Amino acid sequence: MKDTVGILGGGQLGLMLAQAIDRLGFDTIIYESDGQSPCATRRAQVMPFLFTDVNKLKDFFSRTQHVTFDSENIPAAPLQQFAGQLIPSIEVLEISQDRAKEKQFLSKLQVNPVMHVVVPVGANVREAARAFGLPCIAKSVLGGYDGKGQFRLQSEADVARLPLDAAGGWVLEEVLALSLEISCIVARNETEELAFPIFENIHTQHILDFTLLPARVPAELQTQAKTTALQIARAIGLKGLLTVEFFVGRGRDGIEKLFVNELAPRVHNSGHVTLQACSLSQFDALARILTGVPLGHIAMSPGAFCMGQLLGEVWAAQGRTGGPLNLEALQFFPQVVDVFLYGKREARPGRKMGHFVVKEVSAEKALEVARAFRLALTQH
Amino acid sequence: MKDTVGILGGGQLGLMLAQAIDRLGFDTIIYESDGQSPCATRRAQVMPFLFTDVNKLKDFFSRTQHVTFDSENIPAAPLQQFAGQLIPSIEVLEISQDRAKEKQFLSKLQVNPVMHVVVPVGANVREAARAFGLPCIAKSVLGGYDGKGQFRLQSEADVARLPLDAAGGWVLEEVLALSLEISCIVARNETEELAFPIFENIHTQHILDFTLLPARVPAELQTQAKTTALQIARAIGLKGLLTVEFFVGRGRDGIEKLFVNELAPRVHNSGHVTLQACSLSQFDALARILTGVPLGHIAMSPGAFCMGQLLGEVWAAQGRTGGPLNLEALQFFPQVVDVFLYGKREARPGRKMGHFVVKEVSAEKALEVARAFRLALTQH
Repeated sequence: MKDTVGILGGGQLGLMLAQAIDRLGFDTIIYESDGQSPCATRRAQVMPFLFTDVNKLKDFFSRTQHVTFDSENIPAAPLQQFAGQLIPSIEVLEISQDRAKEKQFLSKLQVNPVMHVVVPVGANVREAARAFGLPCIAKSVLGGYDGKGQFRLQSEADVARLPLDAAGGWVLEEVLALSLEISCIVARNETEELAFPIFENIHTQHILDFTLLPARVPAELQTQAKTTALQIARAIGLKGLLTVEFFVGRGRDGIEKLFVNELAPRVHNSGHVTLQACSLSQFDALARILTGVPLGHIAMSPGAFCMGQLLGEVWAAQGRTGGPLNLEALQFFPQVVDVFLYGKREARPGRKMGHFVVKEVSAEKALEVARAFRLALTQH
Repeated sequence: MKDTVGILGGGQLGLMLAQAIDRLGFDTIIYESDGQSPCATRRAQVMPFLFTDVNKLKDFFSRTQHVTFDSENIPAAPLQQFAGQLIPSIEVLEISQDRAKEKQFLSKLQVNPVMHVVVPVGANVREAARAFGLPCIAKSVLGGYDGKGQFRLQSEADVARLPLDAAGGWVLEEVLALSLEISCIVARNETEELAFPIFENIHTQHILDFTLLPARVPAELQTQAKTTALQIARAIGLKGLLTVEFFVGRGRDGIEKLFVNELAPRVHNSGHVTLQACSLSQFDALARILTGVPLGHIAMSPGAFCMGQLLGEVWAAQGRTGGPLNLEALQFFPQVVDVFLYGKREARPGRKMGHFVVKEVSAEKALEVARAFRLALTQH
């Protein structure tokens, strides 16, 4: 048990985190039921059981000192009896996996969440939507990610088509005139706290597509985002990592400002770029918190970076079903400083299969090169 | 077999290489008999058998496309029948693991190896040493690393104490007035070749202690070393990675120059710093060659770097037998941009257990900070 860390979830984020823990000389046990997951095919000590199997969880927790998770969409109830070992805490997990609790927490903290209304299970969501006013967005309270469980309601026809039931009920949100999206990852232990630089995130069909560093937003807004993220981390009593996603845009009041979108209490896909751009990556930061090593500080590499996600579509374009890609295009793109494929066996459309990082003189230029490189990959 | 790479050897070098192969979406199978090795405790797909077990080797090679090794001190004979899959080739392995063949090759190529004489098995090494002249160094032809199998002969008493037999016979070398040691890692596939920057290596008791980048040698000497390393790589028909170790110093003729010391056809401990200092690490370079991905080019990070090795003694000083270290000292050394522990269970004196990397404004300053950081680690 001593010197062993547990990770609930064995996707690409769990894999990268485990490698950071490796480097601190600790052992890692992964709890992941998918035998084809990035961790299962690469790592020793993977326990292939369901999150609801309390006996297996008991065994897992008895073999580990501290335990973290690579997704907030895991059942919290079976974890209650092991709460003392969880980093971040079970309270943080419960707030961030439940949109209703999350909105309540953010509203109480007055950090400007998007204007919203909670529609509990059993209440009539269609009537609630009409009362809230169109256009709006209906999101399921539980289980949504990458746009799953979300519906944009523009017209009465959309409202009439909206399913009545959603996991945990619904949250209705105003539609923003969006300028852009940013995220801030903060790390916190008992005596230290630090904020990673602000990332600009470009989503396509609700899935993170590109992350830019530096973000193309004014310095004051970046400072405001960092301050807000740290304020949330303190208020929630964070030990561990917390990613705060923000919108920059105009709501129904027409004033452009910063809105808190949602919280992810874990390493985040928008933070991949920290592996190249920062002396301490997001994975290193959480690994240090889990193993009691001081966080220290983050030094930035010069230059601008763009992380581009590689979805299943790229494999399909190459006539491949999974595994590696043809990377011949790399020879024409010296600005691509990293390619990281997750080794997933099945390249489904919209599935995150890998990412790459471009280094350039500006964020615009990096984004341009990233788009060109990804296009070149699909033409093989 | 498709999309699977094999590594013979599962130490820290094998582990870091495997992680680079992971990132290209390929699977990796490790062949390593030590169940406590860095790979065995961390990775899936480790085959725990001896290098002499031809049936198990057959199984291993049948499951992999290309195979490389993390040490040249492995028996070559059992690999003969699988030679077509080996990268680098079996010829490169045989030359670099046999000091007599290596010296012969370097002499023929006229790249200035240290003045030497080969003493075959059965010949009288003591007489040969007297004829070669003292002082000299006797090195076993096979199996030596980290100073193992080496004897410095200063006096007739040393000669009289020298064992008569050594694995594969002996090589006698002149003693140089050493200024410093450098290494150059070169990578080569069918159409591309590249040389990593020159590293300056400081050894303590024959074990690599610190690596500095940039090396504190004139630019002309660095160019000469790169040119020589590439010349050797071409002459040996290299596909893969080759580390060439050089001495800078004066031999019996009293003229300061560059001497080729020895060849290691693999990723090398002096190349750890490429993970921080270069856009493409030595592990990435070999991973790309093994998986058919273009090498591209290497961009350098600004600043100076020092890699410091962590031997078993540091664990002993902390009253630990293996695994993690107390890293509290990190908070006082923001210049330490990486700590990489290998997770070895048993911290023997002289055993490489981990390393760290310091980034500073100059090589001197980086070395100074590295010494101070390591000292601070021992005082916990």
